[in-house]
Amino acid sequence: MLKKTIPIMFVLALICIALKAQKLTSFVNPFIGTGAVDSSSLSGSNFPGATVPFGFVQLSPDTQDNPDNPASGYDHNDKTIVGFSHTHLSGTGVADLFDVLFMPATGEVKTVPGEADKPGSGYRSRFSHNEESARPGYYQVKLSDYNVNAELTATEHTGFHRYTFPSGAKSQVIIDMNHSLNKKRSYWSCKIIGAELRVIDNKTIEGYRILTGWAKMRKIYFRAEFSRPFSSHKMINGQKVYENEVFVNGTNIKSVLNFGENNKEPLLVKVGLSPVSLENAKMNMDQEISGWDFEKVVSEAENKWEHELEKIHIEGTKEQKQIFYTGLYHAFTQPNNMADVNGEYQASDFTIRKADDKKHYSTFSLWDTYRAAHPLYTLIQQERTADFINSMFRQYDTYGYLPIWQLWGDENYCMIGNHAIPVIVDAALKGLKGFDIGKAYEAVKGSSVRTHPGSPFDLWNKYHFMPENQQSQSVSITLEMAYDDWCVAQLAKKLNKTEDYTYFMARSMYYKNLYDSQTGFFRAKNDDGKWVSPFNPLQYGGNGGNPYTEGNAWQYFWYVPQDVKGLINLVGGDKAFIAKLDQFFTLKDLPGEVNGNASGFIGQYAHGNEPSHHAAYLYNYAGQPWKTQAYVAQVLNELYNNSFSGYSGNEDCGQMSSWYIFSAMGFYPVNPANSIYAIGSPVLPKAVIHLPGKDFTVTTKNPSKKNVYIQSVKLNGKSYNKTYITHQDIVRGGTLEFTMGPQPNKKWGVSADARPLDSAFK
Amino acid sequence: MLKKTIPIMFVLALICIALKAQKLTSFVNPFIGTGAVDSSSLSGSNFPGATVPFGFVQLSPDTQDNPDNPASGYDHNDKTIVGFSHTHLSGTGVADLFDVLFMPATGEVKTVPGEADKPGSGYRSRFSHNEESARPGYYQVKLSDYNVNAELTATEHTGFHRYTFPSGAKSQVIIDMNHSLNKKRSYWSCKIIGAELRVIDNKTIEGYRILTGWAKMRKIYFRAEFSRPFSSHKMINGQKVYENEVFVNGTNIKSVLNFGENNKEPLLVKVGLSPVSLENAKMNMDQEISGWDFEKVVSEAENKWEHELEKIHIEGTKEQKQIFYTGLYHAFTQPNNMADVNGEYQASDFTIRKADDKKHYSTFSLWDTYRAAHPLYTLIQQERTADFINSMFRQYDTYGYLPIWQLWGDENYCMIGNHAIPVIVDAALKGLKGFDIGKAYEAVKGSSVRTHPGSPFDLWNKYHFMPENQQSQSVSITLEMAYDDWCVAQLAKKLNKTEDYTYFMARSMYYKNLYDSQTGFFRAKNDDGKWVSPFNPLQYGGNGGNPYTEGNAWQYFWYVPQDVKGLINLVGGDKAFIAKLDQFFTLKDLPGEVNGNASGFIGQYAHGNEPSHHAAYLYNYAGQPWKTQAYVAQVLNELYNNSFSGYSGNEDCGQMSSWYIFSAMGFYPVNPANSIYAIGSPVLPKAVIHLPGKDFTVTTKNPSKKNVYIQSVKLNGKSYNKTYITHQDIVRGGTLEFTMGPQPNKKWGVSADARPLDSAFK
Repeated sequence: MLKKTIPIMFVLALICIALKAQKLTSFVNPFIGTGAVDSSSLSGSNFPGATVPFGFVQLSPDTQDNPDNPASGYDHNDKTIVGFSHTHLSGTGVADLFDVLFMPATGEVKTVPGEADKPGSGYRSRFSHNEESARPGYYQVKLSDYNVNAELTATEHTGFHRYTFPSGAKSQVIIDMNHSLNKKRSYWSCKIIGAELRVIDNKTIEGYRILTGWAKMRKIYFRAEFSRPFSSHKMINGQKVYENEVFVNGTNIKSVLNFGENNKEPLLVKVGLSPVSLENAKMNMDQEISGWDFEKVVSEAENKWEHELEKIHIEGTKEQKQIFYTGLYHAFTQPNNMADVNGEYQASDFTIRKADDKKHYSTFSLWDTYRAAHPLYTLIQQERTADFINSMFRQYDTYGYLPIWQLWGDENYCMIGNHAIPVIVDAALKGLKGFDIGKAYEAVKGSSVRTHPGSPFDLWNKYHFMPENQQSQSVSITLEMAYDDWCVAQLAKKLNKTEDYTYFMARSMYYKNLYDSQTGFFRAKNDDGKWVSPFNPLQYGGNGGNPYTEGNAWQYFWYVPQDVKGLINLVGGDKAFIAKLDQFFTLKDLPGEVNGNASGFIGQYAHGNEPSHHAAYLYNYAGQPWKTQAYVAQVLNELYNNSFSGYSGNEDCGQMSSWYIFSAMGFYPVNPANSIYAIGSPVLPKAVIHLPGKDFTVTTKNPSKKNVYIQSVKLNGKSYNKTYITHQDIVRGGTLEFTMGPQPNKKWGVSADARPLDSAFK
Repeated sequence: MLKKTIPIMFVLALICIALKAQKLTSFVNPFIGTGAVDSSSLSGSNFPGATVPFGFVQLSPDTQDNPDNPASGYDHNDKTIVGFSHTHLSGTGVADLFDVLFMPATGEVKTVPGEADKPGSGYRSRFSHNEESARPGYYQVKLSDYNVNAELTATEHTGFHRYTFPSGAKSQVIIDMNHSLNKKRSYWSCKIIGAELRVIDNKTIEGYRILTGWAKMRKIYFRAEFSRPFSSHKMINGQKVYENEVFVNGTNIKSVLNFGENNKEPLLVKVGLSPVSLENAKMNMDQEISGWDFEKVVSEAENKWEHELEKIHIEGTKEQKQIFYTGLYHAFTQPNNMADVNGEYQASDFTIRKADDKKHYSTFSLWDTYRAAHPLYTLIQQERTADFINSMFRQYDTYGYLPIWQLWGDENYCMIGNHAIPVIVDAALKGLKGFDIGKAYEAVKGSSVRTHPGSPFDLWNKYHFMPENQQSQSVSITLEMAYDDWCVAQLAKKLNKTEDYTYFMARSMYYKNLYDSQTGFFRAKNDDGKWVSPFNPLQYGGNGGNPYTEGNAWQYFWYVPQDVKGLINLVGGDKAFIAKLDQFFTLKDLPGEVNGNASGFIGQYAHGNEPSHHAAYLYNYAGQPWKTQAYVAQVLNELYNNSFSGYSGNEDCGQMSSWYIFSAMGFYPVNPANSIYAIGSPVLPKAVIHLPGKDFTVTTKNPSKKNVYIQSVKLNGKSYNKTYITHQDIVRGGTLEFTMGPQPNKKWGVSADARPLDSAFK
């Protein structure tokens, strides 16, 4: 026995070591979400370039010279690269940033990007995905027009490039300060207000630009240091080209640095960036990258990612691991710490202030991320969640209300609601440390009573719904505002502010005032109290001019996460609610005038945009959890993949990924601030969430694309019949064991007390 | 004898006291230059409001809601006032600033300025010049639509308003953060990027705006404190009006504060401003105005003006005194100290920096002011001249070259040349203290070799003239650049930089390369060396697209102040030169396509714009000084007056006034950097320039509109036959005595050695 046992254990140990040795970063595929599968589909709008977790610098190739769509600047379907810019947005529907473009080239100097379909018309180069690779903290591409291999890595504030030129070729680097989001866009278009480039010595160039765009006003300063001297250079100002001039100031400025033909060694360049000053850009670089060891910086970046990804260990197929860990990677790509290494940052009043803790996070795509990305942070980025909240408080202090969509430290009013509120309330109720709960209440209440763009609380208090003729997107705002009010009420309750609790709970029920029992939908009213007609529940709205925001009445029907019971009663009870859900997931009629945010359809359900994200879980609330399981499994298995077109819509700063991360483990925060997770259909054999001092382990027997139905569940070894778990169940550590099968167990989770609670708190 | 003598001496003493008692500020008429005499004339573009010398806050009524022309915002011919904004430009041809508009009103609340010809269509009010008054540091107007008396005064960074409302009227104050230069202007138009208003308590409101305009990017923060509480208020965001909301953020925001009907006491409001932060705006106000004593601030402002005006005491007619002291007032209205009381300012790289001496001057309209305004400062604002130069050095350090037209601390590239160079060189050669002469040379040389917009030194070095097909305005730039080069050479000489001296002296002669002996004019060439044809010496240019800048070939012919002898030789000697001057002053043909800068004509001479300003003095250089005297007297007597239309063109930040100040005393700096003043035709019986420890006194016997010709001159008691004096003559103290008559003394000043020297230095 012993003789036989040892080799087997030895083999098992080797397997364990092998498994251990395979870094989690190896499962990250930064190309997921970088392109649409065809022209009628959406891209995830992710970028494939190099960044560290939550880093300010995100150094990535741009395939478009004035990017607009996809908003990341990189489209996997494009054939040329215009260069590598240092700041990007991941997964957004609107483009901005793209600062300080560097492009290596050879031969004849070109000073315009040129046209993609005319090789040689500019400095852009063709490339092939066969000669391109990326992993966390590293990106590489062969620029085929120049036969230059370009490699990128990054630290928090510094981009690091390594260009390998062909021997004997005249090597050059173009710096384009005019590269920006589309300047001709009809909304939030870019205008470069001023820019400068300055040669410090023959290895160093500095510069900055100040511009308006999706972010109202950004200043971006950089300092670039090269590993070897340039022998000559051009400064370009519009149409004018100056040889070896030290300075250039203008709005359309560029430089070409010539490094000669001695290409024995690769050319390295470090580019420190700062939103504050040239001095800070240098300070950031000096503190983060002292020498010229490119591999060391790559390795450090990878280690930082490994450290973050290790917060959850999973077992599963290679594809599942790739989707899951790339999801975590995308979720941790932002918010970004905008503070320089000395703590200075641009506040929302356009002054420069100093954060003692050297952290000021921005890029808060809250309408998306409050749903699942922030709950994920609340679970496995608890310290950073406090940092996020303290950063949001600063907007409250200088701007009067919490962020709606905060970019570069300032409000851009994209989308609707005040969804910093659920983020803060959720963290407060979960007991996260590191921020002041009194300040939290002041901020969430203040942001719920001070009328501001998109949030006319005067109308809210007067009409108890949003009248469409006074505030467009009125149905969506009514529903989402009611939810935010419920969140405020919960924090009021915790702090024994009874009067406020009563007030905000009353407001949280205003959603009912737009329910039209005739049509069975939430429907717009004008301020005369009359329904807006005609009404078509398939009719899509965009971002104004229609009662529904990026969706239709079908998709917005489900948005009462604070009171699903109330919603069920409104529609006439479980049966009617189930029937409506069934219809929602099966109604194949094309929604009227589908807009660019609608994709990933199952009936009217559109996984490609956020309003649908919680809907599949709602069957749990009406006694048919197996339908939740079926649809959740369908989304997990059909609407995510590990290819460049792996998402069914914009990844949205981590939200699309976080849906997968939670759902793949078997549960999802339908109400992201009540500490309840509805159980869906787990697909991973094992997932271990590492929490401070404790682990929460989810195991799943027999998961497969057929075995999508829960047969039984055990929580900490005991049979478990509820269709939800609480946050407390997770953070106290333990095990959740699912057994799956190909047929529904219609006895599991169907009792009245199995339904998800309104809140985990009394 | 004794009995008789005493009363006479007593009377004399009383007269002296009376004379002494009449403050010089009493001669300042801030309405001079505030309007054009008719629609075909130019306004001085001055504003009548309240400011202290060189103050940042210049609180003045705006008669236009989106000012453009006149650029000061106030037109004496307008019938309505839209309100009082806190920052202005004096005499410029381009509009900007107009920050933080306050307007008192009564009755029905209006939230738009309305139309001037439709009373009651907005908050603007009619007014009458009969119910309007102004003196240095004080402005008052009765707003007749509201029967409100509004009074304004100011400190360096703080505006102080006093509004007297009619008893029983519902009093209100409108704050309009959308009031700006014309947003629809096709060039340098304004865009408000972001703005905020915030009620701090019922006596305090704060706010800011960030905007792009003629100044690339400005941030302006304010804090307003009222002497009594407002009982309610509105916040306005575009079309939306919110009652008693604490905050409003947007791009078109306003507030209306309601003070009720209890108007027994006037309502006072202090408004502190800062280009840096709200905190600094409060700090500025707290430091400058501690209480509510309006009269005290008025008196302090007046005293500051009196102190500055006392630098020159003159005798003359009341009109002469009014023109002269208003001229000094306009000359001392800018440059403006942009630094807050703690020294913080916005640098030209858009960072906030700190000046240890708490001084950072901006608004440098150098193409205008280097001619006579800066020479005036060099004489009687010596300390501030050093401050100006140190401020300019900061642009050199952060921007790469010295200011061309610096507004709000940043370059706007208005006009041509690099005329910070003569300003700095002049101060250095005159031995002014307080700046580093080595740094001065570094900056003037650096700015003369680094190609930048409007100054392509690569072309200059290659062609030895500006080729029109590569650089428009080529004749004007060639002439003015040659002059700036001469200045650099002079400083090189002083510092024994022989090689640089030779180099820049050679460049200073490049003007000859555009002299066309066929036509007898400076004329444009293309880079092939051929004359640009057809050529019409009357043809006007504007600011691009033509070889001449805001002038024609006739007006630019005279621009060789560094080498008038060379110019005389070029044209064929004294006789030909005199004949050409005679023709210039008598050629009545209308210049072709006269543009908006041409006015104040004597023949082709146009006193309304700067290129002509030195031309009348050029007869001295060719032996007929009596013609200088005649034309200078004509300009003094006919092209200046003490009415609202007292200038023949834009006052241009002190240049138009400084021409009068010098010329009225009898001399003018034809070459503003050679320490030589050409003698003209003095019109004042007496002028005393008070210099540190010394006086320089000019007396003129028999001056009158007929007695414009010099009969004889004495310098320090000795007969003086030269047509110039040196700066040294003035600063060492002494007396210059003119005797005037109705006929030319053709023997005075005609000898070869009587002609102005190239330089006062060997």
